[in-house]
Amino acid sequence: MSKKIKVGIVGATGYTGSELLRLLAHHPNVDVTAITSRSEAGIAIADYFPSLRGVYQLVFQTPDEANLDQCDAVFFATPNGVAMKEAPALLEKGIKVIDLSADYRIQDIPTWEKWYGMQHSSPEWVKQAVYGLPEMNRENIAQTLLTANPGCYPTCVSLALLPLLKAGALKENMPLIADCKSGVSGAGRKASVPTLLCEAGDNFKAYGVSGHRHLPEIKQTINYLQPNIADGLIFVPHLTPMIRGMHATLYVHLDGQNNPHDMLSRFYQSSLFVDVLPEGATPETRSVRGANYCRISVQKAPQSNVWIILSVIDNLVKGAAGQAVQNMNIMFGLEEDAGLNTVPLLP
Amino acid sequence: MSKKIKVGIVGATGYTGSELLRLLAHHPNVDVTAITSRSEAGIAIADYFPSLRGVYQLVFQTPDEANLDQCDAVFFATPNGVAMKEAPALLEKGIKVIDLSADYRIQDIPTWEKWYGMQHSSPEWVKQAVYGLPEMNRENIAQTLLTANPGCYPTCVSLALLPLLKAGALKENMPLIADCKSGVSGAGRKASVPTLLCEAGDNFKAYGVSGHRHLPEIKQTINYLQPNIADGLIFVPHLTPMIRGMHATLYVHLDGQNNPHDMLSRFYQSSLFVDVLPEGATPETRSVRGANYCRISVQKAPQSNVWIILSVIDNLVKGAAGQAVQNMNIMFGLEEDAGLNTVPLLP
Amino acid sequence: MSKKIKVGIVGATGYTGSELLRLLAHHPNVDVTAITSRSEAGIAIADYFPSLRGVYQLVFQTPDEANLDQCDAVFFATPNGVAMKEAPALLEKGIKVIDLSADYRIQDIPTWEKWYGMQHSSPEWVKQAVYGLPEMNRENIAQTLLTANPGCYPTCVSLALLPLLKAGALKENMPLIADCKSGVSGAGRKASVPTLLCEAGDNFKAYGVSGHRHLPEIKQTINYLQPNIADGLIFVPHLTPMIRGMHATLYVHLDGQNNPHDMLSRFYQSSLFVDVLPEGATPETRSVRGANYCRISVQKAPQSNVWIILSVIDNLVKGAAGQAVQNMNIMFGLEEDAGLNTVPLLP
Amino acid sequence: MSKKIKVGIVGATGYTGSELLRLLAHHPNVDVTAITSRSEAGIAIADYFPSLRGVYQLVFQTPDEANLDQCDAVFFATPNGVAMKEAPALLEKGIKVIDLSADYRIQDIPTWEKWYGMQHSSPEWVKQAVYGLPEMNRENIAQTLLTANPGCYPTCVSLALLPLLKAGALKENMPLIADCKSGVSGAGRKASVPTLLCEAGDNFKAYGVSGHRHLPEIKQTINYLQPNIADGLIFVPHLTPMIRGMHATLYVHLDGQNNPHDMLSRFYQSSLFVDVLPEGATPETRSVRGANYCRISVQKAPQSNVWIILSVIDNLVKGAAGQAVQNMNIMFGLEEDAGLNTVPLLP
Repeated sequence: MSKKIKVGIVGATGYTGSELLRLLAHHPNVDVTAITSRSEAGIAIADYFPSLRGVYQLVFQTPDEANLDQCDAVFFATPNGVAMKEAPALLEKGIKVIDLSADYRIQDIPTWEKWYGMQHSSPEWVKQAVYGLPEMNRENIAQTLLTANPGCYPTCVSLALLPLLKAGALKENMPLIADCKSGVSGAGRKASVPTLLCEAGDNFKAYGVSGHRHLPEIKQTINYLQPNIADGLIFVPHLTPMIRGMHATLYVHLDGQNNPHDMLSRFYQSSLFVDVLPEGATPETRSVRGANYCRISVQKAPQSNVWIILSVIDNLVKGAAGQAVQNMNIMFGLEEDAGLNTVPLLP
Repeated sequence: MSKKIKVGIVGATGYTGSELLRLLAHHPNVDVTAITSRSEAGIAIADYFPSLRGVYQLVFQTPDEANLDQCDAVFFATPNGVAMKEAPALLEKGIKVIDLSADYRIQDIPTWEKWYGMQHSSPEWVKQAVYGLPEMNRENIAQTLLTANPGCYPTCVSLALLPLLKAGALKENMPLIADCKSGVSGAGRKASVPTLLCEAGDNFKAYGVSGHRHLPEIKQTINYLQPNIADGLIFVPHLTPMIRGMHATLYVHLDGQNNPHDMLSRFYQSSLFVDVLPEGATPETRSVRGANYCRISVQKAPQSNVWIILSVIDNLVKGAAGQAVQNMNIMFGLEEDAGLNTVPLLP
Repeated sequence: MSKKIKVGIVGATGYTGSELLRLLAHHPNVDVTAITSRSEAGIAIADYFPSLRGVYQLVFQTPDEANLDQCDAVFFATPNGVAMKEAPALLEKGIKVIDLSADYRIQDIPTWEKWYGMQHSSPEWVKQAVYGLPEMNRENIAQTLLTANPGCYPTCVSLALLPLLKAGALKENMPLIADCKSGVSGAGRKASVPTLLCEAGDNFKAYGVSGHRHLPEIKQTINYLQPNIADGLIFVPHLTPMIRGMHATLYVHLDGQNNPHDMLSRFYQSSLFVDVLPEGATPETRSVRGANYCRISVQKAPQSNVWIILSVIDNLVKGAAGQAVQNMNIMFGLEEDAGLNTVPLLP
Repeated sequence: MSKKIKVGIVGATGYTGSELLRLLAHHPNVDVTAITSRSEAGIAIADYFPSLRGVYQLVFQTPDEANLDQCDAVFFATPNGVAMKEAPALLEKGIKVIDLSADYRIQDIPTWEKWYGMQHSSPEWVKQAVYGLPEMNRENIAQTLLTANPGCYPTCVSLALLPLLKAGALKENMPLIADCKSGVSGAGRKASVPTLLCEAGDNFKAYGVSGHRHLPEIKQTINYLQPNIADGLIFVPHLTPMIRGMHATLYVHLDGQNNPHDMLSRFYQSSLFVDVLPEGATPETRSVRGANYCRISVQKAPQSNVWIILSVIDNLVKGAAGQAVQNMNIMFGLEEDAGLNTVPLLP
């Protein structure tokens, strides 16, 4: 492929935006040609993110100046509610869009509007959007103009369940517990008290117990793959005093003689990014720090018929920007791991 | 009470030992008269723990030099396997012993020997030992010579379940899931690679999934209070990148119309150290940092009949040294919170 | 002393305010009777700071409701610019004021106005204010209505230099370097991006190199004690990825045969809160975590005539709220360490 | 260059070894063919470092099994004292060696033996070793068989001073202060108490004030470039609660009208890895996390003739493994940044 894809990033002042820039810096098939920010227009990205000095000469532009319609693909790394307004104009010109926000993730508009507290301004595009979990939807992603990049929790949980749901192996009428733990970067790069180092540091707590926006997203995936299971889902997210990383501990009831370790190993045998660990192993979040992997282990609870599945991702990579690049690669027929072969940073 | 209790601490070089020293420093009824350490004999505690400069003039002594038999009470803050050898000689002289190790926690000797991988050298004293969870065993603790101070996970989990188990409210044949998260100080103060800042920092992982030593201890408590429930217990501990703090997330099935928030609130109404939060609140570990409290909240999982109980303690205080002081207070008929009214350190 | 001092705290929603509440909770001579916050009026302190549940029944009030004029002493734990407006009315009624902000620290009004970027609204009270570094000004503090509690950096640096400056031992025309490192809580409890866990965590940087507000405050102290030295002062603060703690590394040139270890040891011989370490020792910030101590060590740079003085405090305690309580104790003729005998929390 | 360099790594179980493996994984001109460890022989690297699963199929071998003499280059990532014994046999066969330990850094053998407390077993090779700071010694590195990779502190300090020393700009008989701060990974991956998360976390302290092994190494570089300056060097390292990163704060006296910002900017104008920031900027360690950059800023102390130079590196990359790869590239005539164009990981 001789000509490079021209890429624009809307909202590159946050963590998912800067992570896109990091991953695309040496992508063999991509030129980032525009980054937009209303508040930072005129400022060089290298002055904004000191880690990008010498890597990009780009300057933030207002959306108007940025000529996004001359891009081949545009990523929205924006707060919820922006892409639904600004993406349609690009889509109508045939520009491919990968939306890292939640705007196009939920097919049922009333459900989306209830959880996100606003009216959807482009419901007609929701129908055309493909949910961008490549391990589930690779073929559809390859055909779509608009990919709705999954949330971090839904990615971490769904990858662990996908082979089981596809096989219809989960037991009905039993609880399906997802006890999840996230690093603080999941809350984004915005001024707030609860995510200060002095508040979130050296501290551990649950949050959103009575309902988190990623709950309907996970349920939608479960329902799509194995009906009558999603009602049993209990999802409790926790805030962990670390920067990056997400860990899901799933407690799962299976029908009959299903062996989930075998099922996951087989399903992900040739997967580029999902790594099923040997029996008895336990994943840790740092084993994927900065990289697009999901590592999963399966263990039987001692003296019990409950299976424990542990799944880890970097919430900013496989949980956001890395998966977005993976989706872009698929949408453009590139190697699925182009630009994504980073080795995790440990320690 | 005019005369002060003379207290000795065996093994004061670890975190539970130094925490005992911190808590006892201004205890109105206690004089710490002896601290022992074979390896550090001759060294002043103030040189060993810089936080104790100006607080204690004590010098580590060998157990022989220390004349522990002139104490009124001796704490064992030692690795497992020490107290079972050294405590009996003191007990036989009528000296009260609070053992912070696991030596006297498990009544069934073969179970203990299996999990701890050694032969018990004083099984006759196990029978006389009282399990030192004051909220469960206050009267027995008041009568005993030998208190087996509970482990940190068992304390955090058992306090959340105690009122429900006593009422026989847990549903049989259903899983009882304890997804637990601990700060790194739970691993003690010993040279090891996995607890280095560069290994445990900015990282999250499960461990001991296939079996952790605190499992039989929790099961023993459950069995004692409500038989036929413990088989359903699934206990998964996780290592969290913080120094102090423990968080248990419990997923509980209850019989009938039991309301666990009411049951816990009633049970702990006049408790000095267990604080049941208002409905809808969520505890965080830093809210008990350095203090002997356990804070618990109860929430119903949305659209489910599973109850979620969240319980936090400081693993070194209510999970170890603080509870040990509480037990000592009870054993000597002192105010139960003497020396324990520290306000948590936040931030 | 049978009757307790009635204390009010203006601005108790920040870290220095909550720290005052922690320290005063068990102060034998104090009742906290009012806490004010315009934004949080009506909210119970126990709901705001979960660590204070069960400790205080207080509810935030507006300044009007709070009847601060019925207090014996009022602490201002407010942003700069509040105390200079609100304190005079109280002072005129004879109520003692301890101001933890910078409003009354700098005697030279134009200097203050330049560094703090506002006009001073009560310069007449500046003259009557006593700079609240007890080790320097104990007698004056005992007599004053208005104490200006020092900043954290000035406390950490000045205590290390005080005996040398008083003896006139510093060499003129030589640089006096204060390379200082602070935990993040020094920036206060307010929503901001640079102090997020994801920005300040796992990161180290200098800031304010071209000029920090604590520079004129340190210079004022130096000038007062030994003229012609302050011009050589170079002060570089750094932000350290920890919650509490401050470390000053001072590089000092002395005249003649002065031995600063001897001078400091002698000067602080009977000090309650300043601890000069034995020769060869090195202080660490955690050795004072949560406590009102300052620990100092002195070392000669190898093959050099420069002395290295290391000084550590907890920036929220000896650097703010603890010193404020110490000042209050002195102003009311109480034991200087009343309420301040906390043992540092380690680990 | 069609044929790949065959590389061996001795001692790949530590942080510098695993970092070499991370950086070499996608190096276009390198095949890592052997990794040795006596203690871990037979274990797959992917089982040892979970971040390397799927990246390497290598298994640790004993030095005997590993056939290091069939490599083109061998890295020693070993404790001090190993390379001096094992490297000569390889060097004599013409195999290029990059030693990340201190064995060949100090030209004066008695000085080395004094600081490292052992007798040097191959002093004849010390004379032939080139000190591997490419910005100082590029031409010599290109010619040598044996490169002594610099220590982390010497790299961070020397890069900041190099242009000034080369120009003879430092003032004689004045102190040259290097106040340095390191992340904990600088202490290596070995079981020890002081580097536990619970000891080094949330804590800041100086260490090695009376003498650190990197002092003679820095002095050697200074002496080589501008005699009569090194005696004024004062070097105080501090331990910072973060995993990676190093920050040097230098206080420098210059002769006459030298402007160090101009001098450094000019000197490093076309440098691949040393980045001189614009005036007024301040570097932070995370801006180089995981990457081979050194970022430097220069500021004049307010109202003073002292210059403040701030320099940051990732101690494991430019301070160890990255610089080692850079040296290898130079020794083999490759692009100097081959394999080293990683974008720093932020946050």
